[in-house]
Amino acid sequence: MSIPREQYAQIYKDNNHPIEYKKVPVPKPGPDEVLINIKYTGVCHTDLHAWKGDWPLRTKQNLIGGHEGAGVVVAVGELVEEIKVGDHAGIKWLNGSCGHCEFCMAGDEPLCEKALLSGYTVDGTFQQYAIGKAVHVARIPKEAPLDAIAPILCAGITVYKALKESNVRAGQTVAIVGAGGGLGSLAIQYAKAMGFRVIAIDTGSEKQEMCLKTLGAEEFVDFAKGDIVANVKSVTGGLGAHAVILLAVSEKPFQQAAEYCRSRGTIVCVGLPPKARVSAEVFSTVIRMITIKGSYVGNRLDTQEAIDFFARGLIKAPFKVGKLSELTKVFQLLEEGKVAGRYVLDTSVSSINHILG
Amino acid sequence: MSIPREQYAQIYKDNNHPIEYKKVPVPKPGPDEVLINIKYTGVCHTDLHAWKGDWPLRTKQNLIGGHEGAGVVVAVGELVEEIKVGDHAGIKWLNGSCGHCEFCMAGDEPLCEKALLSGYTVDGTFQQYAIGKAVHVARIPKEAPLDAIAPILCAGITVYKALKESNVRAGQTVAIVGAGGGLGSLAIQYAKAMGFRVIAIDTGSEKQEMCLKTLGAEEFVDFAKGDIVANVKSVTGGLGAHAVILLAVSEKPFQQAAEYCRSRGTIVCVGLPPKARVSAEVFSTVIRMITIKGSYVGNRLDTQEAIDFFARGLIKAPFKVGKLSELTKVFQLLEEGKVAGRYVLDTSVSSINHILG
Amino acid sequence: MSIPREQYAQIYKDNNHPIEYKKVPVPKPGPDEVLINIKYTGVCHTDLHAWKGDWPLRTKQNLIGGHEGAGVVVAVGELVEEIKVGDHAGIKWLNGSCGHCEFCMAGDEPLCEKALLSGYTVDGTFQQYAIGKAVHVARIPKEAPLDAIAPILCAGITVYKALKESNVRAGQTVAIVGAGGGLGSLAIQYAKAMGFRVIAIDTGSEKQEMCLKTLGAEEFVDFAKGDIVANVKSVTGGLGAHAVILLAVSEKPFQQAAEYCRSRGTIVCVGLPPKARVSAEVFSTVIRMITIKGSYVGNRLDTQEAIDFFARGLIKAPFKVGKLSELTKVFQLLEEGKVAGRYVLDTSVSSINHILG
Amino acid sequence: MSIPREQYAQIYKDNNHPIEYKKVPVPKPGPDEVLINIKYTGVCHTDLHAWKGDWPLRTKQNLIGGHEGAGVVVAVGELVEEIKVGDHAGIKWLNGSCGHCEFCMAGDEPLCEKALLSGYTVDGTFQQYAIGKAVHVARIPKEAPLDAIAPILCAGITVYKALKESNVRAGQTVAIVGAGGGLGSLAIQYAKAMGFRVIAIDTGSEKQEMCLKTLGAEEFVDFAKGDIVANVKSVTGGLGAHAVILLAVSEKPFQQAAEYCRSRGTIVCVGLPPKARVSAEVFSTVIRMITIKGSYVGNRLDTQEAIDFFARGLIKAPFKVGKLSELTKVFQLLEEGKVAGRYVLDTSVSSINHILG
Repeated sequence: MSIPREQYAQIYKDNNHPIEYKKVPVPKPGPDEVLINIKYTGVCHTDLHAWKGDWPLRTKQNLIGGHEGAGVVVAVGELVEEIKVGDHAGIKWLNGSCGHCEFCMAGDEPLCEKALLSGYTVDGTFQQYAIGKAVHVARIPKEAPLDAIAPILCAGITVYKALKESNVRAGQTVAIVGAGGGLGSLAIQYAKAMGFRVIAIDTGSEKQEMCLKTLGAEEFVDFAKGDIVANVKSVTGGLGAHAVILLAVSEKPFQQAAEYCRSRGTIVCVGLPPKARVSAEVFSTVIRMITIKGSYVGNRLDTQEAIDFFARGLIKAPFKVGKLSELTKVFQLLEEGKVAGRYVLDTSVSSINHILG
Repeated sequence: MSIPREQYAQIYKDNNHPIEYKKVPVPKPGPDEVLINIKYTGVCHTDLHAWKGDWPLRTKQNLIGGHEGAGVVVAVGELVEEIKVGDHAGIKWLNGSCGHCEFCMAGDEPLCEKALLSGYTVDGTFQQYAIGKAVHVARIPKEAPLDAIAPILCAGITVYKALKESNVRAGQTVAIVGAGGGLGSLAIQYAKAMGFRVIAIDTGSEKQEMCLKTLGAEEFVDFAKGDIVANVKSVTGGLGAHAVILLAVSEKPFQQAAEYCRSRGTIVCVGLPPKARVSAEVFSTVIRMITIKGSYVGNRLDTQEAIDFFARGLIKAPFKVGKLSELTKVFQLLEEGKVAGRYVLDTSVSSINHILG
Repeated sequence: MSIPREQYAQIYKDNNHPIEYKKVPVPKPGPDEVLINIKYTGVCHTDLHAWKGDWPLRTKQNLIGGHEGAGVVVAVGELVEEIKVGDHAGIKWLNGSCGHCEFCMAGDEPLCEKALLSGYTVDGTFQQYAIGKAVHVARIPKEAPLDAIAPILCAGITVYKALKESNVRAGQTVAIVGAGGGLGSLAIQYAKAMGFRVIAIDTGSEKQEMCLKTLGAEEFVDFAKGDIVANVKSVTGGLGAHAVILLAVSEKPFQQAAEYCRSRGTIVCVGLPPKARVSAEVFSTVIRMITIKGSYVGNRLDTQEAIDFFARGLIKAPFKVGKLSELTKVFQLLEEGKVAGRYVLDTSVSSINHILG
Repeated sequence: MSIPREQYAQIYKDNNHPIEYKKVPVPKPGPDEVLINIKYTGVCHTDLHAWKGDWPLRTKQNLIGGHEGAGVVVAVGELVEEIKVGDHAGIKWLNGSCGHCEFCMAGDEPLCEKALLSGYTVDGTFQQYAIGKAVHVARIPKEAPLDAIAPILCAGITVYKALKESNVRAGQTVAIVGAGGGLGSLAIQYAKAMGFRVIAIDTGSEKQEMCLKTLGAEEFVDFAKGDIVANVKSVTGGLGAHAVILLAVSEKPFQQAAEYCRSRGTIVCVGLPPKARVSAEVFSTVIRMITIKGSYVGNRLDTQEAIDFFARGLIKAPFKVGKLSELTKVFQLLEEGKVAGRYVLDTSVSSINHILG
């Protein structure tokens, strides 16, 4: 496979500055790295945060963002034996980790203090050729379409991990808060594939229809209608849900979930409402033995498992396709809250460089 | 064994009313119950709450309080085969439970919605003869002294359960907040017996000395001196404690523990500061995958395990002895915060009915 | 509900003696028991063993067999609060247990050394009115048909428990040996409902068709064709199945399963081939970290969960109906290996007392 | 630190051929490797198997054996950031692994099908300068003596892992078969440090004395005196041990352990008697829910934990010191069964090259 010297990329000169779509050199993989010709890359809210620089963690300068990239391996470093040129592979949020710390050794590499974050602390997938540490690159089976799988590499892994962390067993109920959003619609499908019974929590009849009819939730609780606590209890035999997955980006559910979580149940925080705190009454947390926990992105094994569910056809992630050149436009749409589902950008350069209006 | 018709008991006519020490009939065990001649009963802060009625849960009227009673079985119901007259046994907080609900079936009987609570919703151990459901009665080996074991039946079980719930493995560190108190001093000893490394958090040089020298903690962090977060991190290689056990009765540690808990670590709430909430930043809870959970009293198996550690001589619970007739006096001392360790009341009636000054 | 004084029952005077179908008194429930008007009772191979007395464990004399009975509660003892007359309920293999031992306290009541076994050490369900300890009686939702649910009370619970014990997670593979039999066909359905991927192992094109088309296994390996070890590996990416459930009643699979079980995988023994041993090479067991374990019947919680999957319509157990009077005939058919699926006996007495030919 | 071009090593030209002690070039670390100046190396039975070639797995040719080497890092590859020249580090059995397979991703790297084995498939520690993959090298705190820690790097990790795999909780009993041997004496100490209660199984009054008095076992069962099954049961309240760790190198205990293992208990196979099978009756395995499993060497996290217990002074491993030049002599002693404890070889070359007789 011939690798060009130059490629197109979207570069953030600085936070909040106009993003430049321009030619840059194709990077060379180090001994333990692979170079992937990114075919499609998803665009996630986190990318918007990286560009704006409004998170507590600092980004790299002259950053190429993006962390949901799927493509074809075109070069591998001298130490890389398990991945071959021609393999399909993906670059996800976690680009690399130290490999030595107690978190890496325990398979909790997302907690590594020296983790490399794609499109944040190292260049990501808003370019045609991107680098990933070989042991972190996601393996994609050839039968999986590269456009549809891109959002699985962040959103899919994240909700799958949260469901694993929920301690729910097949046959038990999980309440998903924010069920009608991008993460939520994936979460409902993963939960079903894992044998869980889903109570979708969101608002509006359109989302209700989608959650119940299209995605397969058993119950829908509209948080804007009536008493959410009473309503969740009423659809769970009075005891509450075995687990609650908080995908919401407002703070209130993080303060309230303990009230409709079953005794001995688990509340999993995933969404990141700015400056929010999660809280619960000490008295009832103790005498009802409630667990509240945070779940971050999945590790490498979670990644492969999440991909496997997708490859088996159990997960449908609705997405729209744009061109890599149109990133700024997609950021605008995201900011305006006009994106339902996910945008996936085609990195190929052709005479038609605009798909979006 | 001859059972008298009448006995002495301490009765709360109503919340906050003077407690009467008087003769009452000895109760008769039902088919699934046992009658225990209580020799010694501990006095716990919960007893004070029951008398005052300042908890959200209502007490029985004309209540005989107490839930840490150790004695000798003097009668058993017709269905009781496993416990014999003459056995040593104890009555603990959980006097009975429905046996049928999903919590009872899962060995989480303290979460049973129909649980009977000794000295709260049913009569407890501030009497010479008390009733317990046979399957809930604690089995006490004959070599264990009945006075010293009384506080194990509530305080011991509670801290042992919290340590089990902490997910800490042998060799890892547990920070115990309130280490120098009654629960704390038991917690340090149980933690050591389980192979954990203890960071005692409390204040004052007297408590420091006790925690480090007498009880065997490895480190002491004085919460009144310097930055508790930095100090816990500095004695745990910068990463924080693998678990934090919150025995405190003030709210602040419940808001702060997440900051000195290791990533992937667990915070276990046990103490019940009035009206308090437990909370943490959502952002760091998620990206550090922190778990916060409540731990209530142990189940029946935890009870026997906690007793077993005690019977093996690994746990020393300092206590002072009074007479059952002196309960009101002990309540005063408790209220004034003048009780270091536990009071245990001798229920025998003799010419000497006053031990306390 | 009026309870007659007499009823019909099938009584084994002694092992291997002719079974008598005759009138006997209706038993009275003790204080902690319930009396159930059995509507339908399954017939299991274990019942045949009980009658023959060819197991190491001795049966009661003058035994009324049966341990898969579903019916309506007609009387409850004075201590029974959670079950009411009119409730639907079932009697399963475990009729009662001591409630006090470490196994009972841990929710492992099937391991209780004083367990009462229905239709074995106490009278069972081959009668119109049977007794069960209230805390052990299975709760059956009223929408579940009493004939179809009967086999769930033993076969269903047993395979569900084995699947729980297998440590398999959703998305992983489980090889079921004996997949085409009565237990096997239930196991495939429970496995699917739990999100597992099933490799059915059995023989013959009829069973292959049933496992793949009707029950939803992903793969079928015919143990009579070619190399079973190679074949299982070839359908699991070369690594073997994450777990193997041994429902077989011949010894060979118990000696061979380790060879097609994945490293770190689990082999669960359920079937009871007479005098068989389970075994594996020490060397490969160690360096591949294989686990071999036994799984007995489920506990009370497993029972309710297994019933819940059934009540949700996820499990179809094919069965044929006979009359209680026809037990001897069914035993003959069982002995001759002529029963595909399960026989369920209708206990009602009417002018038509023969359904089977 | 200056690195010589040549060094002394012990080389096996071929299986069973005389081992040559001679000068060879010092190897150079690859980009992801470190070079360690081995100060001390343990000698393990596995080394003898590697030299003889009597295991099913083939060794490298012209092999330098050894897999318990402790020393000082003298060079690191360009990708190595976490380990520095001057650090103390160890080379263990697992020298490297692929990092990509499902076992590596799950922290089960000893199960990696492409694992590199020190002193077996790659050169090991019977040389003055040895190579290890950086992420696999054991980190040794500077306060730990390099001679005493060498045997921890294989024997210590192995028994610690087996104890973790046993599912025993603090306060429960573990029977250690082969308690008086090299692995056994370490196992007793790790078990105690983890809060377990140890029943030592071995034979002879000398081993009895050592297990009970020096190492801290609670009970000793002499397998050569009386009925081992009855004896283990009698010291465990009649129920058997919660777990059995099989360190033996004869087959019998692998066939018998299930009989003195408690119901729901776990038997962990560690020892590797040639051509042996582990087995148990199917009937009692099922109805008592016994688990039998293999445990191989620990992973990287287990390694650091095992070292941590040692560094805290909780583990004393008796050893004798020889010189690297004396390897053949030590092999002879091992073969003759004359080694009590472990031999550790000093790799330094001096005028005194013989310590052993």
